[in-house]
Amino acid sequence: MISEREYRAAQREALRYLKKAGIVLTKEEKERIEVADFGLGDLRRTGLQLLTYVNTRRVCAKELVLFPKQTCPEHMHPRIGRQPGKEETFRCRFGTVYMYVPGRKTPRPKCKPPPGREAFYTVWHEIRLRPGEQYTLEPQTLHWFQSGKEGAVVSEFSTRSVDEKDVFTDPGIKRKTEIR
Amino acid sequence: MISEREYRAAQREALRYLKKAGIVLTKEEKERIEVADFGLGDLRRTGLQLLTYVNTRRVCAKELVLFPKQTCPEHMHPRIGRQPGKEETFRCRFGTVYMYVPGRKTPRPKCKPPPGREAFYTVWHEIRLRPGEQYTLEPQTLHWFQSGKEGAVVSEFSTRSVDEKDVFTDPGIKRKTEIR
Repeated sequence: MISEREYRAAQREALRYLKKAGIVLTKEEKERIEVADFGLGDLRRTGLQLLTYVNTRRVCAKELVLFPKQTCPEHMHPRIGRQPGKEETFRCRFGTVYMYVPGRKTPRPKCKPPPGREAFYTVWHEIRLRPGEQYTLEPQTLHWFQSGKEGAVVSEFSTRSVDEKDVFTDPGIKRKTEIR
Repeated sequence: MISEREYRAAQREALRYLKKAGIVLTKEEKERIEVADFGLGDLRRTGLQLLTYVNTRRVCAKELVLFPKQTCPEHMHPRIGRQPGKEETFRCRFGTVYMYVPGRKTPRPKCKPPPGREAFYTVWHEIRLRPGEQYTLEPQTLHWFQSGKEGAVVSEFSTRSVDEKDVFTDPGIKRKTEIR
């Protein structure tokens, strides 16, 4: 749950990060930046700002904005009918983003999960992405990510996005943002 | 046919346009910018510079650079086996690009085909894209595009790219660049 005022403020702030990344948007796009608090009502810690450029049956492209140390919580994109799960490439445009995926646990990870939600962060192989660096996730791979202290802008190139089908590790999460 | 020297110069120039568009590349990416003269040996008129970020079985993302008034010649992406043709979204990041697609002929189009190749430009419905504007092409749609006088940078989000299967209207075109 997030207030209308907080939603609008987060949209405006996301826009400032997109500008820093040199990304030009139309007026219509600026107004439809999506703010996701994942139902935890703690946007600055668990949250994500998104702008979807295109999402057809076959292809999706988005810009993701993370405020400083904001976390997109652990989730995966399941198989839907005959379609394998969503395949995603994340390309960092501004700031630093730390992605966590299955694999050997990184000894001293740079990020901590949001306080109180630690139990729902189970994959700990860290991949650091700086501007110009990218990483492709295979379908059905658990992942979460957090930005460094400058925040981050990340381009996502993927197959069709069906956000409401995402499977989150934290049972408290609701993908759809409710505005009170 | 293009000389090694011309190829390298076009790579460096493309990089300057990508910088103007605020796009950060890794060293490895800078070195693999592709220069396509489409076999006509007249790069400044018929040509395209490309950087492919990712091209998996399902998803492809690229940046395209056009020098001032440079034309990407008319072509379409055919069905391959069970796969419908490539679906593409073009998003302008810098400059102006004029896309030509089937439909009502635009009365006073802004662009002229490269001299001597006019016969191979058959679709004349013009779509102008300025920074932040985009257009999605259905599979198997003939199209060509040319930049305005500042040049252009265009992001392409698409299904898998199999350039060597592209079907060009101009029979003189070879998609693969030969360096002499």
